[in-house]
Amino acid sequence: MTLTNLTAQIRSKNSYLCVGLDTTLEKIPPSLRTGPDPIFEFNRQIIDATMDLCVAYKINTAFYEVMGAAGWDILARTAAYIPSTHLRIADAKRGDIGNTSHQYARAFFETLDFDAVTVAPYMGSDSIRPFLEYPGKWTIVLGLTSNEGSGDFQQQPMGQGMLYERVIEKVSGWGSPDNLMFVVGATKASEIASIRKIIPHHFLLIPGVGFQGGSLKDVSQAGLNEQVGLLVNSSRAIIYASQEEDFASVARQKAREYQSEMKSYL
Amino acid sequence: MTLTNLTAQIRSKNSYLCVGLDTTLEKIPPSLRTGPDPIFEFNRQIIDATMDLCVAYKINTAFYEVMGAAGWDILARTAAYIPSTHLRIADAKRGDIGNTSHQYARAFFETLDFDAVTVAPYMGSDSIRPFLEYPGKWTIVLGLTSNEGSGDFQQQPMGQGMLYERVIEKVSGWGSPDNLMFVVGATKASEIASIRKIIPHHFLLIPGVGFQGGSLKDVSQAGLNEQVGLLVNSSRAIIYASQEEDFASVARQKAREYQSEMKSYL
Repeated sequence: MTLTNLTAQIRSKNSYLCVGLDTTLEKIPPSLRTGPDPIFEFNRQIIDATMDLCVAYKINTAFYEVMGAAGWDILARTAAYIPSTHLRIADAKRGDIGNTSHQYARAFFETLDFDAVTVAPYMGSDSIRPFLEYPGKWTIVLGLTSNEGSGDFQQQPMGQGMLYERVIEKVSGWGSPDNLMFVVGATKASEIASIRKIIPHHFLLIPGVGFQGGSLKDVSQAGLNEQVGLLVNSSRAIIYASQEEDFASVARQKAREYQSEMKSYL
Repeated sequence: MTLTNLTAQIRSKNSYLCVGLDTTLEKIPPSLRTGPDPIFEFNRQIIDATMDLCVAYKINTAFYEVMGAAGWDILARTAAYIPSTHLRIADAKRGDIGNTSHQYARAFFETLDFDAVTVAPYMGSDSIRPFLEYPGKWTIVLGLTSNEGSGDFQQQPMGQGMLYERVIEKVSGWGSPDNLMFVVGATKASEIASIRKIIPHHFLLIPGVGFQGGSLKDVSQAGLNEQVGLLVNSSRAIIYASQEEDFASVARQKAREYQSEMKSYL
């Protein structure tokens, strides 16, 4: 999916919402749990119920790997079920030496046909470039994350700023706003404004709205740019808004709330 | 596997060799390639041919994920085939927010029953602690990697030293030499000595001997401690030493060369 395409999708839906499919068996309704294919069935119903209100789905690989090969199969089928109008993000946080990162890029962009994958920056350029080399695909690099541990290294001084600022500045030179985004944790809305000074044109993937805290209003005011430039993800706050039979319609209602609020900021 | 156990294995075999199973279909002998289960069969023969000469096997997940769910199944069967006398390392370089890292820890330590998993440090304490919480399991955190990109962030000044030194120093406080190791790239043998000043007692996993360059002698002289404290990995230099029918016996011969040299340093 191209940048123009993504922005057009957002404008037509008045939504920059990404729905995170962090699905676990323990949290889906009991009635589904005993069926033959509960995780996929849950994902399918969530996608059907929310697709006109969001522009992206994000699948965190951890929740599927825990089920072994069967989980990897559900991940593949879920990715394939997401309409091609939507950005399909593998939240995988991969990164290895060049030759090995190339295998990861093949895994997510060819074997699984995701549009985007999240990548960790610690190993530097040759760990990230193999992802950027895929035409029409997106690499989403961890900048500043929303968890408590982001203080340990990301928010430690390096040179004139913090490590995360150096990461964003340096990595932004390896790609362009057409193939590179950054993860920026929404609990730090105050930092989004200063990140916008380093990368005014790149899309930011904001993972922390909902259970991880962070205000949609603050994030939007600080982060929106002329191409919209924001994808705001919510996982648990949408998909587990109800854990009963009505989970899909309540998820839709919750997604609608986000979308209505987003419309007012666009 | 406990620290005492690991050191005893090394002493009895006179070997701190780890064999890396970075297996790809394109590189295995043509005769195997057309069989029903070529990757597993290759791994099985490599393991059979080298198990008395090494103390650990390292499986890099990238080479299996590229095959999708089928690859994940091969990975599981390969891990299960490794004798329990050997340290089974998942080279996965995972790391996410606490709740999600917990899923990764479950995936590798419960679903797949690995003894150890490599973890990326960028996201800080709550991304690493869920792995450390598993009794009897090992967390191997990226310190200094052997690739060119390690210069981009790891070897940039932070505080009194470099980022990688800060990572090693800080992370070492979250675990102990009984459950925590560090990845240290062997192309930087000169840095191993200074890393030993920060963590005299931890095991180091050295991934870069062989195709990635780095001298076994230099690494051993700088890194060995009273508990041995080193696992030296070789992947391609062993498993692809021959790409013909005789791959297993040539791999054995290559592993024997490493083991003989290691014996002289112990």
